[in-house]
Parts: sequence; structure tokens; C-alpha cells
Amino acid sequence: MKASQFFVSTLKEAPADAEVVSHRLMTRAGLIKKLGAGIYTYMPMGLRVIRKVEAIVREEMNRAGAVECTMPVVQPAELWQETGRFEKMGPELLRIQDRHGRDFIVQPTSEEVVTDIARQELRSYKQLPKNFYQIQTKFRDERRPRFGLMRGREFIMKDAYSFDRDPAGAQASYQAMAQAYRRIFDRFGLKYRAVAADSGAIGGDLSEEFQVIAATGEDAIVYCPDSDYAANMEKAEAAAPAGPRPAPAQARTLTPTPGKATCADVAALLGVPLSSTVKSLVLATDVLNDAGEPAGVQVWLLLLRGDHDMNEIKVSKVPGLDAGFRFATVPEIEEHFGAKPGYLGPLDLKKPVKIVADREVAVMADWICGANQVDHHITGVNWGRDLPEPRAVADLRNVVAGDRSPDGRGELAIERGIEVGHVFYLGTKYSKAMGATFLNEDGKPAFFEMGCYGIGVTRLPAAAIEQNHDERGIIWPDAIAPFTVVLCPIGMDRSETVKAAAEQLHMDLLAAGVDVLLDDRGERPGAMFADWELIGVPHRVVLSERGLKEGQVEYQHRRDTAATKVAAADILSFVKEKLAA
Amino acid sequence: MKASQFFVSTLKEAPADAEVVSHRLMTRAGLIKKLGAGIYTYMPMGLRVIRKVEAIVREEMNRAGAVECTMPVVQPAELWQETGRFEKMGPELLRIQDRHGRDFIVQPTSEEVVTDIARQELRSYKQLPKNFYQIQTKFRDERRPRFGLMRGREFIMKDAYSFDRDPAGAQASYQAMAQAYRRIFDRFGLKYRAVAADSGAIGGDLSEEFQVIAATGEDAIVYCPDSDYAANMEKAEAAAPAGPRPAPAQARTLTPTPGKATCADVAALLGVPLSSTVKSLVLATDVLNDAGEPAGVQVWLLLLRGDHDMNEIKVSKVPGLDAGFRFATVPEIEEHFGAKPGYLGPLDLKKPVKIVADREVAVMADWICGANQVDHHITGVNWGRDLPEPRAVADLRNVVAGDRSPDGRGELAIERGIEVGHVFYLGTKYSKAMGATFLNEDGKPAFFEMGCYGIGVTRLPAAAIEQNHDERGIIWPDAIAPFTVVLCPIGMDRSETVKAAAEQLHMDLLAAGVDVLLDDRGERPGAMFADWELIGVPHRVVLSERGLKEGQVEYQHRRDTAATKVAAADILSFVKEKLAA
Repeated sequence: MKASQFFVSTLKEAPADAEVVSHRLMTRAGLIKKLGAGIYTYMPMGLRVIRKVEAIVREEMNRAGAVECTMPVVQPAELWQETGRFEKMGPELLRIQDRHGRDFIVQPTSEEVVTDIARQELRSYKQLPKNFYQIQTKFRDERRPRFGLMRGREFIMKDAYSFDRDPAGAQASYQAMAQAYRRIFDRFGLKYRAVAADSGAIGGDLSEEFQVIAATGEDAIVYCPDSDYAANMEKAEAAAPAGPRPAPAQARTLTPTPGKATCADVAALLGVPLSSTVKSLVLATDVLNDAGEPAGVQVWLLLLRGDHDMNEIKVSKVPGLDAGFRFATVPEIEEHFGAKPGYLGPLDLKKPVKIVADREVAVMADWICGANQVDHHITGVNWGRDLPEPRAVADLRNVVAGDRSPDGRGELAIERGIEVGHVFYLGTKYSKAMGATFLNEDGKPAFFEMGCYGIGVTRLPAAAIEQNHDERGIIWPDAIAPFTVVLCPIGMDRSETVKAAAEQLHMDLLAAGVDVLLDDRGERPGAMFADWELIGVPHRVVLSERGLKEGQVEYQHRRDTAATKVAAADILSFVKEKLAA
Repeated sequence: MKASQFFVSTLKEAPADAEVVSHRLMTRAGLIKKLGAGIYTYMPMGLRVIRKVEAIVREEMNRAGAVECTMPVVQPAELWQETGRFEKMGPELLRIQDRHGRDFIVQPTSEEVVTDIARQELRSYKQLPKNFYQIQTKFRDERRPRFGLMRGREFIMKDAYSFDRDPAGAQASYQAMAQAYRRIFDRFGLKYRAVAADSGAIGGDLSEEFQVIAATGEDAIVYCPDSDYAANMEKAEAAAPAGPRPAPAQARTLTPTPGKATCADVAALLGVPLSSTVKSLVLATDVLNDAGEPAGVQVWLLLLRGDHDMNEIKVSKVPGLDAGFRFATVPEIEEHFGAKPGYLGPLDLKKPVKIVADREVAVMADWICGANQVDHHITGVNWGRDLPEPRAVADLRNVVAGDRSPDGRGELAIERGIEVGHVFYLGTKYSKAMGATFLNEDGKPAFFEMGCYGIGVTRLPAAAIEQNHDERGIIWPDAIAPFTVVLCPIGMDRSETVKAAAEQLHMDLLAAGVDVLLDDRGERPGAMFADWELIGVPHRVVLSERGLKEGQVEYQHRRDTAATKVAAADILSFVKEKLAA
């Protein structure tokens, strides 16, 4: 490809709304162009990256036995009403009425459509397993679209859906996809982790996120450097506390803590570690009568160590809280604790509440908590002496770096990641909602066991850039670079020698199957180099008249700090070797 | 590819709403699946066809120097308000409001977005010409979607837009596209015609439709078998009448024609050819006063030969009718003619009307027209004697088969076609509306000269089927078949010989780059053959134990009436030769 036949457009300045480096660089390098909030044109340079991502995804999906189709972007509401998602999904679901006033949506995913296809097409267990996928435009009307392609409204997703006759089959389909995803992410040439994720109501461990590692990532990834353990923060289990609870050593003491309404302030005031304090979180659930009508409120007190954070997903699995909960209101808190938030604790309650202690809190002795009196805490609190042993103990907290790994093989570390893929065992959630059955071996109808598997095709380039860039611009891995090699001839318009050599090398590389671009725009060397460093083409060859006279050209990888002189006669094999490396 | 790893799904019966053969066959062959009115999932078998169409289009667009990008499906209304299309386009334009109540549309085409890109990106004449294209989902909320992919609401279109500095450049860009389209349609392997089309307000001949020939086509295509002349019916010019007008031979006679309100009935009653009658079409235009307010109605009488049909596009170019017209109302007709429709004519008017005669009518003598009296016509009417020579004479009619070709090189023929491509010179229509300029060589801003170029990617397979099918199913051209070759082993599950031979041939064909499918489903031969004849794979090889024992396999092209025995040892080269043919 010659630059004159392509479209190269770079900007010195990033737009004011570009907060993250990938958004800034994708805009400056001319990969994308904003049309509206969260809506971008994929410009020629960016589309090349997206097409390479798609090609890798497609090859590996096909290799894994999935079959490609394309489901409509605009979908009738009826199917979404069958699963209840038409009502349940918030304004994120873009709703339309057609000329006849009928309801439609723009697909954010396609579980409903693919399940509808399955219930019509997959009539017998003999047709199973089957996995349909598409690489297709999606839309989610994000409340606050930002970060360019990282959190856009319109985007391209690869979504796959597997159909199996039983859970064992579904697990095999799931594992095949998880393996395909590893191959896909390996091929992208990015540092990533596959981390266990919460699988919601389905339970089990059949949910993994594929996170591209980047310091700027929105997600916290928990992993053990000494083992294979990796999970996202929602899912990562806090290992059971190591030792037994120490014996009480202090007397229970009402201690004035004027104006100190946080554990950190109290610890500082009293000169004790934050980990000797206990924080009180007050939740509420609705109590229903036998007729299922609201008949009152149950208040809950969650106790966590002062230096720990609550993990909502874990809390939502505590029996009694698993049907939904909310934070208690101030009047509800005052009614039960006789005090305002900031000084709450499990002692001297005005009305009984259900107490759930985090596992770490259950093994603490001589701890400090609010006194249920303004400006007062109690120190030297001990289970079994000052209050009954906790009846409910659970893992309620986010893990922290240095926690023991749940597999017992080291300590946990935490890094940041960008979620770009997700594999998920769905069970019969959609097949039951939509009455999607097949005839089993015994001739009886059974619900499909399903899985769903997504890759954010347009998000991936953004994640790749967050991971791979420097002050000059993007640094693409070979596999998804818009061009693998760029040829920069200096003074091509003035020198027949340079022109001939550049065009010959261009032809030779094309013939060798290399995705090469010849920059024949006639830019000055400085501007030309800056463009390609910004765009991030990994391999660059510079041809100049002076160099060619000495029989030399210059090669530089985008990560190299200096160019390497290579004999002009050897450059073809030199580049091919670099690409094979 | 093995069938067991793919998805083959055929139906005995077509859905009740499938009116045309392509819709019936695409549904029965499992190429598409209806989700809603005019909205289809492209099933795996159909998607393969679409991908092949896309690949051919993409290769030839790139070869012609166009650059691919992808514009958003969901587009902000603002740009569409700049050109006025947001208001002007009817309910065909699918409108959406997002969560913030802002207006969006689902793209039916992308002139606005690409012009917006150009006015930002193409700042200098040095960057021109430039041609951006996309292959992308479109939506048009058709009032009556039907015929499957032929007139769907959601569809895939390749749309390209060229930007040039002046009309000469735009014409060169247009010609490059017109040539690329010929290469594309040649490669599809379909019978087609590129026909001149009306270019609306722009004028000139820079608009061509690419019509796939099919007896079931909606469009009438006019062509001259003895020359290159081809145009669509709207555009095709009726050559000027051959000879001078004969001298009057009959006297003007009021003739009773009770109940005969059509030319055909009158001709039959009087025993004369239909071509000796003249039909009266009454139109109306609004007359505006100096302030531009409606100040009355001008009534027009169009005279066409009884056997000719009015051509609305031609009528809309008659001076005075070119700002818009409508058919006159019955009260307006009675006010000017003193008679009801059915017996109208240019003689004995109650109030003056503007008369426009078709060129053929202007050379008629002794003609018959309505008498402006119920149940009466006048025979023997002659220009210059019974009424003044016509002041306005124009080509107002559709051509008919047998008309002289406008290039004077033979007679016109008419066949049916399906419009699948369109190239169009746009001029500055969009660049002026959106203030899209670049700096010309003299440093002054100038409006882009634009062209637009569409191919209906998902319509093409339907058109291909309308042209190529028989009672057993589809017959694909090699270039766009879902698979080029199908291997049908008989009793593969029982015979190791058949299995080994089939798998070897499958591997050999794959290695030769042939898009081959091995049907390993274990279907009975009858059902297997019926499936592939329905799906329309052009080349079939049948392997049976009996044949293999004799060292033979059977080859049959989808159009062949019988199979050819081929030595098993030669089948690979035999098939390769067939594909090269």
C-alpha cells in the first residue's frame, strides 16, 4: 500500500474531551473520528486495526467449531419482552418506534434473538452442541460515554452463544471457548490475564474475564504471583483468617472521640492501627407477609475491619441479603441504634438488628467500634464477653494486596486491567424464559443449557494502546498494527535512487506477504517520522540517498532507541526475520 | 469445512409471506431467517454468500483507489438537519431519541456524515481526489417491506463517496467507479446491464444503474441489441418521430362512444388501431403571486398517443411543470373541460389550459380524442385545422419495444432487471448545504464536487437467485456460492473406503484453495442431494463404495442434467479444471 492511495491524517493536539491516553492517541493518529458522544467513525487507519482484531477472533472462533451468522442490529421488542429485559433494562437499552408505532431496540447483545433461532432450528439433541457467533455493531446508551472506544455507545462486539443438552456439555463448550479466548489473546500480542469472575445467580466458577493489563485500567485484578490464581476484585475470595482469636486483654471502655466519625480518624486519635477498628455498615431489606406484601423492614449490621472495604457481590450472597438489599436510611439507623452514622456499633442497640461479621472481624479481640453515642467509641470490645459470638460470619470484604491466596500458595497481588473479553455459563436462564427446548434422547423436551462469550472488538485497540504507548505515540504489537512495516524514503521526489530502492523494497515485502506501507507523501523526514511514531507502526525502514550510496538502509523498531544500519542487500531478509521473531 | 462443523438447515416449505422465488429459496435453503417485517438474520449459509460479495466489492473498490472506513449506524440528527433531510425524508428515516431526549437516526445512507468528515479532513486541493467507502448496516423503514432481502428494512450496503476539486475531476472519479462496478459485476458471474439513469436536478448523463437481469425484476430496462444503448425506463429517450405529419384526410366528426371511457375501448368500438387515439392527462400546478403566495391553479393538458404511457420523470422536466405538479381534481377538470374524465380532449374547452403534446402526437393526423361531452369522442382531428399547432411539444412517454434507438442504430428492446448498484454524480448538492469546502490552488475556498456510489450487498444474492434457479432450488455462480464444491459421500458412516476417499479429496481440495464442503452428516443420498440442489452449490462430487471399487466418482454441475463418471485418480484435476473454466 502506498500512503498516497490511503488516508493518513494526524493531529498535533488531542481534543479537549479526551481524558485517557488511548482516546488521545487514537484521535491524534487518525484512527477514529468523533461523530457524537460515544459515537465514532472508524477511519481508514483505525479500521485496519479493527479488521485485524476481527480476523484473529474469527479464525479462532471457527477453529473452536463456532459458526458465524449476523443477527439484526434493529430488533423487535417482542423477544425482549419474553425475557423481561425490555422492561428491566434501563435507558441503556436504546428503544425505537417504527413508522407503525411498533417497539424496537438497537441490540446491546443478542441472547433473545439467538435463543429464538435455537428454539426454531435446533430441534434434536443430535444437533447439539452448537455455537453461533456474530461480529456486529452494538449500541448501549451509556449515561456518560467517555474514553473514546473504551466506553463508547456504538461499538463492535463479537458475541457467541453456545447451546448444549446438559450442564456437562455446556461446561465442555465453555471450556472450549475459554481456551479459544486464550489463543485469541495470545495472538493479539498483549499482556493479559484470564481472571475468575462472579457468575451471579448461576453459581460455580464458570465465568472468566479477559483483562488486558494496563496501569490505567478501571478494574482491579487479583492474582497470586506464585500460583495460577487470578480473579477480579468482585470475585476474589479472602482466605479464611490464619490463627484462632486471641484472648481478651483489654476491658471494655467507653472512649470519647469527639468529631471522629471514621475508623481512620479514631485510629489516629487513639494511636492504634486501623486494623484494630471495626466499621459498621447498616443495610435494610424488605420483610414480606404471607401474601408477599411489604410488611416491614429488617435492619442489618455488617461489621468489617476498619482497613477493609465492603464487597457488594459477596454481601449479596449472604442468606437473607440475597434477594436484594439497600443501605438503611438515617431514620431507620436512628430508630435501631439511637445514634447517627459515624458512631455506630453492635453494642447497646435500641432495637435488635441482624449482625453479620466479616471473617476477619470474627477472629479479632480487643477491637474498637462506635458506641451508638455521638462523639464516642468503645475500645477493648470482645466477642463472647461484651456481645454474643457472631451467629453469621461471612467473607464480606474486598481482598487487599498481601492477603494470603485462597489456594494457599502465596500472597495476593493486585494490578489494574481493562476487561475486553468475558466467557459466561448462562445455564437455562434464557431458554426457560423463552421456552426454548429440544427433544432429548428419550424424546422429551429439555431446555438448552447455554453459555455466552463476548469480545469487545473496538475496545481492544484502545486497551492495547493503554498498555503500549510512550510519549511519542502508540506502539502496536505486530498482530494488530494498522501496517506492520512502514518504509520512509527521504527525498523520494528528488532522488531516483531512493525512489527505485523504496519501490523495489515495497514490492518485495508485499510479495513476501508483509503488510507494508510506503510513505510516498513527500513529507519532510521529521514530520514523516513523527507521524509513524504517533501511529505506532512497529517496524520502520528509512531509505536515504546518502545511505544507499553506502549500500545501507536504517531499520528501527518502534521500541528501539536508535536505528540499526543494515546492508541494503540484506534488508528484506532482515525485516522478515524481525517479523518472525 | 465439514457439514458437521457447520450449520445446514433446509425447509420443505417456504413461509406463506414469501411471494418471490428468491425469498422462498433463501428461506428454504437456510440462508436467512426472518426476525420481523423486513428484518432478517443472515444465517451461516447466507452469511458466506454475503461475505463473498463483500470481498469482491472490497477488492475492486481498493483497486480503484477508494479507502474503506466505517461510519456509525446511529447518527446524530444535527447533520441531517444541516441538509434538511431530517425534515424532508418521510417515515422511511428511522428516528430515535436517546436517554437525554436528543434526536438520532439510523443511517439509510451517509452523505451527511462523510461530507462532515471531508470538511474537517480534506483541507487542501492536494488531498483530492479522495473516495471514502464503507460496507455497513443500513436501515430504511419501508412502508411495505417484502420479498425477503429484495426490499428489506435492515440491509447491508456498500456506499462510496468521492470528493473532487472540480467537475472534470468528479467526472473522472465517477468514471473510475463506473469501471470498478463493471469489474465487480463481471466477477459476480451474473448477467447484468449498466443502464443510464436519470440524474435529477444535476442533469447530464452521470448516473448509471447496475441492473441484474431477471424476468421477475421490478424495473424495466431499455436497451438496443444492435448498439451499446441502455437506460432505465425513466431515462430512456423516445427517438424523435421519423417522418413528417401526413396531411389531413378525414373530416372532424363528433362520434357517439357510449360508455367507452378509455382509448382502448374507443379503438375497439370504432375498429381502429389504438395508435390512432390520443389520451388526455390533466395536471395542475400552483400559481404564486409576486409575494410567493398561492394565487390560483394552472391546469395543464398532456396529450399522449393511446398506446403510450406517461413518463413522470420526463413530464417533471417540462418547463412550468419542473417545480412540481399533481393530477388535477375532478372539480378542476369539470371547470376547464365541462366534462368528466373519460371523454376529455383539447377541443371546445370551457376555460383555457396549457397544452403539451408528446412528440408522437405532434406528428399525428386524423386522430381521435374525447369531445368534452360524456359518451362522445371526436374523430378526424387535425393540428392546424381543428386546433392550433401545439406550442409545447416534448418527449412525455415511456418508450416501448420496437421504438427506434435514440442513437439511431436499431430498435429498442425491453427486459426486466433488479437494481443492485447505482453510480451518481452529486455535484455540490451536499457540500453547499453543509458548507464543505477546501482551499484551492489559488488559496480560495471551493465546494467539493461529489459523487456517490452504492451496491446493495444483501440484495445482490436475492437478485442472483431471481436470475439463477430452477424447480429444485438455487444455482449459484461460482464466485458467490456459499461453497463452490460439495462432496457427497454415500454411506460414509458404514464404509471406510468412502470415508477415507472423501476425507482425502476434502483435504486435497482445501489444499488447492477450493472452498469445499464435505457433507458428513450421514443423510440418505436422496435427502443429501436435495439439500445441496436447494442450496445451489454449483459443483458436486458423489463418492460411493460401488463407484470407488471401479475406481470412479461422479461429478455433476448444478446445471447438468446427468452426472459424469470421472476416474477417482483424476477427480482433483477434473474439479480444478471445472473451476478454472
